[in-house]
Parts: sequence; C-alpha cells; structure tokens
Amino acid sequence: MAQVQRFLNERILPNEQTYLDQLVGTEDWREWKIPPIMEELKAEAKELGLWNLFLPDEGYGAGLDNRDYAPIAEITGRSFIAPEVFNCNAPDTGNAEVLVKYGSDEQKQQWLEPLLAGEIRSGFAMTEPAVASSDATNMQATCEIVGDEVVLNGQKWWTSGAGDPRCGFFIFMGVTNPDANRHERHSMVLCPVDAPGVKILRMLPVFGHLDEPHGHAEILFDDVRLPVSSIIAGPGRGFEIAQGRLGPGRIHHCMRAIGASERALQRLCERAVHRVAFGKPLSNLGGNRDIIANSRMAIDQARLLTMKAAWALDTMGTFGALVDISAIKVIAPNVLQAVTDAAIQIHGGEGMSDPELSRLMGMARALRIADGPDEVHRGMVARLELKKYV
Amino acid sequence: MAQVQRFLNERILPNEQTYLDQLVGTEDWREWKIPPIMEELKAEAKELGLWNLFLPDEGYGAGLDNRDYAPIAEITGRSFIAPEVFNCNAPDTGNAEVLVKYGSDEQKQQWLEPLLAGEIRSGFAMTEPAVASSDATNMQATCEIVGDEVVLNGQKWWTSGAGDPRCGFFIFMGVTNPDANRHERHSMVLCPVDAPGVKILRMLPVFGHLDEPHGHAEILFDDVRLPVSSIIAGPGRGFEIAQGRLGPGRIHHCMRAIGASERALQRLCERAVHRVAFGKPLSNLGGNRDIIANSRMAIDQARLLTMKAAWALDTMGTFGALVDISAIKVIAPNVLQAVTDAAIQIHGGEGMSDPELSRLMGMARALRIADGPDEVHRGMVARLELKKYV
Amino acid sequence: MAQVQRFLNERILPNEQTYLDQLVGTEDWREWKIPPIMEELKAEAKELGLWNLFLPDEGYGAGLDNRDYAPIAEITGRSFIAPEVFNCNAPDTGNAEVLVKYGSDEQKQQWLEPLLAGEIRSGFAMTEPAVASSDATNMQATCEIVGDEVVLNGQKWWTSGAGDPRCGFFIFMGVTNPDANRHERHSMVLCPVDAPGVKILRMLPVFGHLDEPHGHAEILFDDVRLPVSSIIAGPGRGFEIAQGRLGPGRIHHCMRAIGASERALQRLCERAVHRVAFGKPLSNLGGNRDIIANSRMAIDQARLLTMKAAWALDTMGTFGALVDISAIKVIAPNVLQAVTDAAIQIHGGEGMSDPELSRLMGMARALRIADGPDEVHRGMVARLELKKYV
Amino acid sequence: MAQVQRFLNERILPNEQTYLDQLVGTEDWREWKIPPIMEELKAEAKELGLWNLFLPDEGYGAGLDNRDYAPIAEITGRSFIAPEVFNCNAPDTGNAEVLVKYGSDEQKQQWLEPLLAGEIRSGFAMTEPAVASSDATNMQATCEIVGDEVVLNGQKWWTSGAGDPRCGFFIFMGVTNPDANRHERHSMVLCPVDAPGVKILRMLPVFGHLDEPHGHAEILFDDVRLPVSSIIAGPGRGFEIAQGRLGPGRIHHCMRAIGASERALQRLCERAVHRVAFGKPLSNLGGNRDIIANSRMAIDQARLLTMKAAWALDTMGTFGALVDISAIKVIAPNVLQAVTDAAIQIHGGEGMSDPELSRLMGMARALRIADGPDEVHRGMVARLELKKYV
Repeated sequence: MAQVQRFLNERILPNEQTYLDQLVGTEDWREWKIPPIMEELKAEAKELGLWNLFLPDEGYGAGLDNRDYAPIAEITGRSFIAPEVFNCNAPDTGNAEVLVKYGSDEQKQQWLEPLLAGEIRSGFAMTEPAVASSDATNMQATCEIVGDEVVLNGQKWWTSGAGDPRCGFFIFMGVTNPDANRHERHSMVLCPVDAPGVKILRMLPVFGHLDEPHGHAEILFDDVRLPVSSIIAGPGRGFEIAQGRLGPGRIHHCMRAIGASERALQRLCERAVHRVAFGKPLSNLGGNRDIIANSRMAIDQARLLTMKAAWALDTMGTFGALVDISAIKVIAPNVLQAVTDAAIQIHGGEGMSDPELSRLMGMARALRIADGPDEVHRGMVARLELKKYV
Repeated sequence: MAQVQRFLNERILPNEQTYLDQLVGTEDWREWKIPPIMEELKAEAKELGLWNLFLPDEGYGAGLDNRDYAPIAEITGRSFIAPEVFNCNAPDTGNAEVLVKYGSDEQKQQWLEPLLAGEIRSGFAMTEPAVASSDATNMQATCEIVGDEVVLNGQKWWTSGAGDPRCGFFIFMGVTNPDANRHERHSMVLCPVDAPGVKILRMLPVFGHLDEPHGHAEILFDDVRLPVSSIIAGPGRGFEIAQGRLGPGRIHHCMRAIGASERALQRLCERAVHRVAFGKPLSNLGGNRDIIANSRMAIDQARLLTMKAAWALDTMGTFGALVDISAIKVIAPNVLQAVTDAAIQIHGGEGMSDPELSRLMGMARALRIADGPDEVHRGMVARLELKKYV
Repeated sequence: MAQVQRFLNERILPNEQTYLDQLVGTEDWREWKIPPIMEELKAEAKELGLWNLFLPDEGYGAGLDNRDYAPIAEITGRSFIAPEVFNCNAPDTGNAEVLVKYGSDEQKQQWLEPLLAGEIRSGFAMTEPAVASSDATNMQATCEIVGDEVVLNGQKWWTSGAGDPRCGFFIFMGVTNPDANRHERHSMVLCPVDAPGVKILRMLPVFGHLDEPHGHAEILFDDVRLPVSSIIAGPGRGFEIAQGRLGPGRIHHCMRAIGASERALQRLCERAVHRVAFGKPLSNLGGNRDIIANSRMAIDQARLLTMKAAWALDTMGTFGALVDISAIKVIAPNVLQAVTDAAIQIHGGEGMSDPELSRLMGMARALRIADGPDEVHRGMVARLELKKYV
Repeated sequence: MAQVQRFLNERILPNEQTYLDQLVGTEDWREWKIPPIMEELKAEAKELGLWNLFLPDEGYGAGLDNRDYAPIAEITGRSFIAPEVFNCNAPDTGNAEVLVKYGSDEQKQQWLEPLLAGEIRSGFAMTEPAVASSDATNMQATCEIVGDEVVLNGQKWWTSGAGDPRCGFFIFMGVTNPDANRHERHSMVLCPVDAPGVKILRMLPVFGHLDEPHGHAEILFDDVRLPVSSIIAGPGRGFEIAQGRLGPGRIHHCMRAIGASERALQRLCERAVHRVAFGKPLSNLGGNRDIIANSRMAIDQARLLTMKAAWALDTMGTFGALVDISAIKVIAPNVLQAVTDAAIQIHGGEGMSDPELSRLMGMARALRIADGPDEVHRGMVARLELKKYV
C-alpha cells in the first residue's frame, strides 16, 4: 500500500497534466487516441507488481480480498488516471472477475488474458435507454438462441469504456427466456466490439464531458449473431452473474469515491489556508471551518462503513453484505458530491472552471445513479431494517 | 406578461433546438457565430414591443419598475435563449442601466443606443483571477489618468458575453486613486473590444461548457489607452455605480433562476408521472413526492421573497432592500441547484447527459458565486440582523 | 396593529412572569386555576377593542379577513399568553368560527356568546388515540341518532383546552352514518363538559409539560346522550365543517409560529451579541452568522408564504388555497423548530432549561403533528403539483 | 457482552416501568427517593460480575479497554436505568477514573471504594452559569489555598447526580493560581455534599424534566473550607486531570447515545410496521423508508467512528484520538436527535407525550451541549484538518 501511495505521488500525480496535454481533444470519439504516457505508466506499474491488485484470484490476480484492496482503491481514487495505470479500472475489473469466476477456458484465453495484461479494454452493456434499469425485470434487450448461435438485439447505453480505441469486447446482458423464473431469464454474452451488427451510436456526456478517451456509449445491437459458446456460464445465468459482480464493484467505486473526496477536501483546505479576503485567510471566515469539519467527519465515517462492507463481503458473502453495500453506495457518492460542491464554492470563479473539480462533480453525480440509484439502495436498506419487525 | 408567456411558448421554446443546431459547435471561440434564428426571434419580439422590458427608464425602456418586470424575468428564465430574444440578457441589462443613469450624451449615443437596439452586445470586466473579488478592496486592476488619457491595466475574468462576435464594448472597473477614501478609489471606463492592448486570453468553462456563443472571458488589459471621456460619470465613482447596478441585476438573476427552477421541476414531474419502475410510476415510489413537495414549497417561497426584494428596491432604494437582495441571492440559486439535482436524479442515466439539465446545473452553480458568493450575502444578512441588537 | 404591538410590549410581555408565578404548579389538573392576571389583561384588551380580532364576521367579530388578521396573529405569537389575552387562542377561535357559520340561534346564544365574551373556554374532540387520525376515514367514535337524542361514544385525545377550569363545552366529531358517502358520514356535536358520560382521563404531556392551565386531554365519551339539537348544522355535515374550520386555523397557527420564531431568533441574537467566549462575542465565532442568516431568510420566506395563503383563502376559498395552506403547515413549524433548536444551542447549558425556549420547542414539535402531520401536507402539495401533468 | 445483553433484556427492560412507578414524582428534589427496584437490580448485576465494566483498571475494575467496553456501553444506552444498574453511569464513571488515576490512598478509601461498591453517588462541579464554559479560561470559581485549608467559592450548575439522596461528594474545579500558566491554574477538589457552605440552589430542568432522582443541580460554594488533602493530585493539576477524564467519558456518552438511537429506530420501525393509515402500514407511505434507511446508515456510521475513536484512545492516547473524539461528540448526539425526532413524528400525537421518546430527545439535546458543544468540537476537527496545510 505504501508502494501504491508512493507510485501515485511520484509518478502518477505529476503526469496528470501530461496525460491531459496528450489527449486529442475532440468531440468525435472515432478519433480518440490513448495518451502515450498511460502506456508508459502502466508498464512501470506492472514492472513493480502494482498490477491487477483488485483481483482476489491468486492465479490471475494479487490474491487480495476486499478488505486488503479497499485502501488501495482509495488511493487510486485520488487521481483520475490512477485506476487504469494499475489495471484496476471499471468496468474492466468487474468484467475480469466475471470471466475468472464463470468463464470457459476458451473465453479466458481469448478475452481475460489480454484484459489482465492491459492490452485490451472492455465494456459492460446492461443499462437501457427506454426503461428504468433500476428494475431489472424491465430489460428489453434479447439474446435468443437460434440453432448454435445466440442472437443479440436491443439498445444499450452508459456502456463505459466503449470509446476507448483499445476496447475489445462487451459483456452484453439480455433476455434469453422471458417465460423462465424471474431470476433465470437473462444471459450474459461476450460480444466482440467489431461483431457485425454492433453499432456505436454516440458517446454520452456527463455534465457536458465525454470522458475522452474512455467514453460512455449508446450502442445498438442489431441482430448480432455469435456462437453459443459466447454465452458466459450458460443461458439463464445472467442475473446470478450480475449479482455476484456488483458487490466488489460497488466497494471499489465507493473507495475510489472516498479517495476522490479526500482530494476535494485537500483542494478545499489549501484554498482556505492560502486565499485571503477581508484581511483574513478564508479558513478564518464565516462557516468555512464547519464545512471543513463536516467534510472530514463525513469522509471518515464513509470510509469506515465501506471497510465494514468489504469485511462483510469477505466473510459473509453478497447476502451478508447487502445492507452495508447498499448503504455505502448511497453514502460515498453523496459525500463526494457535497465535499466537491464545497470545494468549488470556496474557489469562487475559479471553482466552476477548474477541470479537476468539474471532473469530481461529474464522477459524484454519475455514481449516484450508476450501479443502482440512491433511491433503490435506500429502499434496500429500509427493507432489510423493517424485516426485523415483521 | 401574458404576451411574453405566449411568445415564449409559441416562438421561443419550439426554436431552442433550432438554435442549438445552428451553433458552430467548436471550442475555438474565435469561430463562434450567432445562430440566425436568434436575430429572427429578436426582430419578432421587437416588433411586438416585447423589448427592453427590463429598463425602468420610460424614454429608453418600457418604464416598468422592478415589481412589474420580475414576473417577466421569471418567464424568460424558462428558456436559455429567451433573455436575449427580449434584449433582456445579462450583462447587457446592467450595462444599459448604468449608461442610462450615469452615461454622458456621447456615451449614450455611441454605446447605449446600439445596445438597446440589439445591434451590439457588451461585457462587464470586474472580477479578477488573482484575488478574492468578494472583497472589493482587493481589486488590483488600475485605470490611471495620464494627461487626457485613462490607461487601463490588469487582468479580468468571468467577463461574460465577451465571446459573442457582436460584443462591442466592456465596462472596465479599476483603481484610479488608491489613496482615496475606500469607496472613492475606483472608476468605470467604457472600453471598446478592439482597443489596442485588450487581449482576450481564453473562454472559461462552467462544468466544461463554454456557453457558446456567449462565453466567459479571461482578458488582459495591457496599457489600454482611452480618452478620459471614456470614464463613466467621472473618476472615483466606480464603487457607487457598482452598488446601484447590482440591486436590479440580482433581482433579474434571481427571477430567472426561479423560472429555471420551475422548468426543472416541470421536467422532474413529467418524468415522475411517465416513467415506470417496479410496476408503478416513479411518482408513487419512495420519497419522490416529498422531493416534489419540497421543491414546490422552496420555489414558491423564493419567488415571494424575490418579489418582496423588488418591492423594497422600488420603494426604499438599494439600502432599504439590502437584506432582501442578499437573501434572495443566496436562496434562489440554491433552490435552482437543489431542484435541478433532483431532476437529474429522477432521470437516471439520462439525467447526467441531458443538455438542458446540465445547463441548469451550470447556471445554478455559477450564480452561487457570481455577483457575490453565498457566503458574502449570508454575512450581509447576519450583519444587518445583529445590528438590531447592538 | 400598532396598538396590538404596543399592548403586547407594555402590558403582556412584562406580565408573563406574573402569570407563571400565579400558576398553581401541580400535575393534578383538577386543581388548576386561572392566574388572576389573565382576567385583568383580558379586561384591558377588551376595553381597548383588541378583542376577537380573528373573527371575520362583522357582527360577532372585528370583520378582518385573513390577510388583515395574519400580522396580528404573528404579534400574538411572541408571547405564550397573548392569544388568550386577545381572546384569539386556539381552539376557541376555530370553535367560534364554526358556530358563527353553522350554529343555530340557540347554539349561538348558549355557547358562542359566552365564548366570545371570554367567559368560557372550549375544546375540539376530534383526534383519537387508537388510529391514525391523519386519515379521517379511520375515525372510530360514533354519534348515533336514537330517537330525539344523539348518543356519543368513543375515546378522544389531544383535546386542547380541556384542562381549563372555565372550559364549557367540546365540539365532538364522530360517525353518524357509516354507510353514507365518505364525506357525509360524520357529525359535529356540541357537548357540555359536564354532560353525564364525559370522563376526562388525563392530561397529555408535550415533552413532559402539561401546559397548565390549558391542558391536552384524553377523554372518554361513554354513552353521552344529548338532544339532537346539539348537532351542528345537522347530521352528516361534520366533514364539511371540519374542512372549512381548518383553513383559517392553520393560517393562525402558522402566523403565531412565525411570531414565535421571531422571538427565538431575538433570543439567539441577543445571546450571540452579549455572550463572550475565547475573547469574542459568540456572533463572531464559527458558523453562528450563517445560522442567524439562515434563520432570518427562513422566517421571512415562511411569513410571505403564509401571507400568500391568507390572500388565497380570502380571495379563492379553501380549495384555491389548498397548496399554500398545506405548504405553510409544513414550513412554519419546521422553521420554528430549527430556529428554536439553534437558540437553545447558542445558550449552552442555559438553553436546555430555559422555560421559554423549551416551550417554543414543544410548540414547534406539536405543530408538526397537530392539524395534519408534515407528511400529509407534503403529500397534498405533491399531489396537486403532479395533477398538472396527468 | 452477551451476558450484558441478556441481563438487559430479561431483567432491566421489563423493570423500567416498575422503576417509574416507584418514583416519588415530585418537583421538590429534597423528597426524592431511590426506587427500591434499582438496588435489587444492582445487587443482581454485581452478583453476576456485570459491574464497573467501564473501569480499565484491573484492580478496581474489569480491566476492559475502551474498545472492549464500547459495545457494552452501547447496550446500556438502550435503557435509561441500565447504566446505573451496572454501576456504569456518568458522572460516577469519570469521577472513579479520576480517583483511580490521581487519588491518594486516603481519597480512594474514603470516596472511591464506596462509589465502586455502588453505595454512594457523586457529582462533577465544573460548568458555571455566568460564563461560556466551552472556554475553560473563563472559569470564575476559585479554590484558594489558605494555610492548610483549601477554600472553595463560586457558583456551578449542571452538576448532574447532585439530586440523588445517595450523592456523597462532588469533584469541584476552580482556579487556584490565576497567574500561572494557562493550563496550570486550576485544581480539582473533593468536596463532601454536606460540607458547610455547600448550598444546592435548585435542580435544572431539561425540556421541563428534572431527571428525578438524579437531577442536575445549580450549587453555590460559599466559602467552603476543606483540608488541603482534599485536592486531587495537588494544586494546579485540574486542567490536566480534566483532559484525561474527557476522552473515555465522551466515548461512553457517544456509545450510549448510539444504543439510545437504536432504541429510537426500533420504536420508529415498530410503529411503521404496525400502524395503518390510508389502508397501508406507515412503512409503505411517503418517504418513511428513506427516513428509516437514513437512520440506519447514520447510526452504523456513528458506531464505527466511535469504535475507531475508542481504538485510537487505547492505542495512541488522548492526543492521538483528538480528531475522532471531537468528531463523535458532534456526530452521535446529532444522530440521536434526528432519529428520535423522526420516531416522535411517526408516532403522531402519541409521539409528543411518549415518556421514552421525550427522554431520548432530552438526552440528545443535552449531549449536544454537555462536554463541549457541537461548535467547539467542530472547531477542533477543522483546526486539526487545516494544520496539515500550514
């Protein structure tokens, strides 16, 4: 962990600007390129063994459990480029976990190995534009089995990472058997980016940002035909796989959000200490100290709850960790949003146009919706609480 | 007012998309152009007499006082292009008021008349990057009088409207006599956009948006030499003019923010009614009705307080309206931010990338800082409250 | 209004302590007595014509509409004894309005006239302990018509004023015809306090206070037989009468809450100005000015919305004022609770035991539940908002 | 811990009502008596070894550190009589710790032993009515050394436990040497309750409750003369002792507050599940599930932070735990207040008069002020955060 922190401080943070300078800077995602500094940093991190730390599998990954990895994830949250440098960025992490756990040998060889090597990137095509995706039974996309093929149809969006020129495949989720039991209808299918019928329609902005060169795509799957061997773990197991995928993913997201909150608070404090108005540093004016104290208390509490969720997941599995994971999924992004808003405010005119603070705000805002909106997770916490009394 | 509402509904709202389609869509502000639909709509509005309604002067404007104009400003807040269509957009409104009240005949002829005719646009160069502009005594820019010239030096930013190709002049504020009484040091100077020494450095993004073709500029005034007749109302009166300019401007901003809040609430409710999850419209799920009720109550209260501030300004002048104007300057943008945040949340994945909601969020965020940040205005309200007890 | 304010300042506020000193100070409500100072002040107020100002009827009352009376109600909210001094205290005000509007001549003569003369007090027996009274269809008490008698049965609580030794009658609400249309089942009946079968079981505490000598009673109506002429306006009209009673009553409550909030803020500011810690007045420490500013802004907004509700009720009737009345019923008590909580906090150890601040907290807490809890009123505001979109 | 939980469930909770029934129920504290059930339960707890668990000293106490005791303290927070049953109630716990650590053998024999045996109770006389006690340099009480006597003068209040008929002594804090270094001016003195010159003036109410038979006293120390051997650890060490006393005491308070919050949430949920309105249990109405979820998340976070503070105190001492202890001192009472307020609200009319919920509200409100108000602790958190940047 100390090594991760040092690498962040010495190699990653100083190169954030380089990364931004090397970006193509265009709205047309077809022209996006990967800044060369990224591959350089990845090579260094890999060399140092700071690589795939998220993956609990001892063969493919570092063998860390969620509790061990959580503080590392927090550190990577301090820089927007750090997760990828360590090959620990979403959605590749979740996709890799799925393949480790459920993939066939062939699937592992074709997609998992280059993904873990950092050679390709991937996307996760689950959310749909026309329906409330917080309710999985709404899903409209289909993956029908026709002979020895599986045929994908449907429109997906918020497939993050799809704008990356290195993106190699999507994990597509759709309905295979609408008549099956509620939790056995869906399948997950490995779909190459360049399969005939895959049409990337556009990249979606988050508060106007396209997150170049990562991107969040809206994709049409129009009669995409793949061999049935592309189905992960067999038809009807999509829901089961999705459930298992979400726990660790949410913990990673939340720990990164906490690292990001620390960065926002750092920015807030530095400004408070160094900016003078009415003859005093801002830290001595009005309610600014209350804001700082409230931020510190909120971050510390969010971290402890996320660590507890990681512990619960490690020791009691997904079901034993349900309350805590839903709780942090509400808490951590809201803390990030509040601290970032305060950091923007204390920066005055500079705050609104500061690229880092804008990015953190977009990250917070997106996380309050992605992987289940606040409302769904609050509902889960309440449901499990009330269950004690009926 | 009914006419303004009708024109908004029938002509402006249906043409918002046309306006967006006609934008150049580039980050290079030098290439920005005005969408032709804007000039068409302006001509129509002018023809109908829906023009310069903000201006209380009966000769130059419509002769409405703040109370009369406030509900009109609210209506214009429902569309991001409406204020300009009615020639009622900031900072032109404030600049026009200054010229009506303090301008010489020559200044009026040269700058006020084309501004009121909608032929040129203008900017207000007050805020500075290096200092806390919430404290006016921090101002570093200078406008020294040297012989029969006034010489401008300094760096300004957040000069809104400076990216507009039709922008004709700035009102520049700087220190003329640093040794004078605290409130008699500054002057305001009319500075043509193309005066030698004026260097527009860049347009500042708000959450990544450049607000094409309006823009918020960072500008270097480097030894800009102008005739002393460019000074408005004479040297040393800058602070006095600024004070008078701010009252009505803040009321306009707040009423537009309230109109914008209504639009956000409308979006929220439409989504709540029409989107279904778990078998119910979102309006029947969880705490969504509380959110809607809280939004309605907050907007209604903000509107009433803003109307009261307008009444106070009309009947008691700037000093009599101090508390109320500072109060609404805190309340209205925060209401807009909260309602917009809720509207984004209920839209799920669509919310983050919805252009209108993103724009409203940027507007709210900027308004919490522009024209004095929340903190300064809360401080003013508290100071006047405590004064009753000492 | 100036006269009311002057009488409050000169006669009422200076006698609050006298009133408290003259209280019996016992938990046994049967021994409660009216402090003599109350009758003295009432006589003075009556003499000056500051009497029954709440009553819009020109014959029986002062002929003021809700808009006119609202600012007076605010003034009376500044002292806990003021409403009764002006014969404007709940529930007598609502009961008097009911009798003016719906009472028979005989009912008016027997109960209304002594009530308006301040000779007797009254109670309103509606809420029931066993059911959620926010839903009127839950009501279990009955008033059956048997021959020429109406027979009351059921248990009521929160019948405020029932502990007053001068209490003469209750208005009892119960179900007469359970098979009728939902809004035509209930009747209201005038029931003398000493009617056989009326058993006052106990006085309910609010945060431990019994509100001597007013009291909030739990009452058993056990086969109470009264002549059918005791029914107000005839059987089945209870719901209709209740609806009409609530509008003005809520406005009065809210305006008094706003007056009470002003008193809490005054206490807060006086403490902030005069108490010193760490070498500075509390007003110069931490976020205290933000608290003061937020309080001022909240109170001013609540007042304006309540005034608007009064205007809506005067000009558009109960249905036209529905949103606004529900809105203020949420807003005003919550503002009072927040400002009082802040006032307690700034008083430190003294705050918790300060009788006035404790009383204000109890008032706020009770008002968030009485006459419909926050939740019901938020629900109403949301329902009417959503109606615009379906 | 399981044993403590079982004893709470089987012996304490079922006897709460007995305790209340046995109370004298008078406002005159001189007549207060201890309900016999208390001594019975104490005897049982002592017998089972569930006694003095708070005391880390292995000789006098149970040898548990703060981490071990924290969950036990939480359990005792679920009943208002539990802390005393286990001889773990404030301020006796803090006073015992002081005597264990700083007391002379004679002091231990005379006061510590009967205190730990549960035979006597004690008070802590620190806070003063006339000054802001959050700033220790404000303290006005004196304990001058005159010959071989120490002479106490001054007025104290919020000396909790002074109303208990078994109260044997106070620890009095005052200024011995006003000219000494800021942190070496004060002494702590053991003062018997019946020493000549000790005048208990009154018991202070918290929201109207006197907390019979415990009580919070205002006490005049009028020329109280005691042997110098009554000074704890020698003159000038009062500040040092106070510092050491506060850490564990705050953790105990906060853990009890968390236990109390759990009880409030339990009450809230039971009501939500069993009360029906509009045809549904309250748990299915409006935003009630959000309230429940927010309560659960807040309590869990507060608990984790308090556990972390206990760990910090055990492993790094008072200074290493400064941030965390100040943080929980803000968080835990505010969580208790919010959850209790929500529990009251969902109980409707019953909520305001429910004795348990009223008591919890009083507890929360008092804790936000006692042992340093929120403001002082937020200030401490902010100060230590900002220190990282200067």
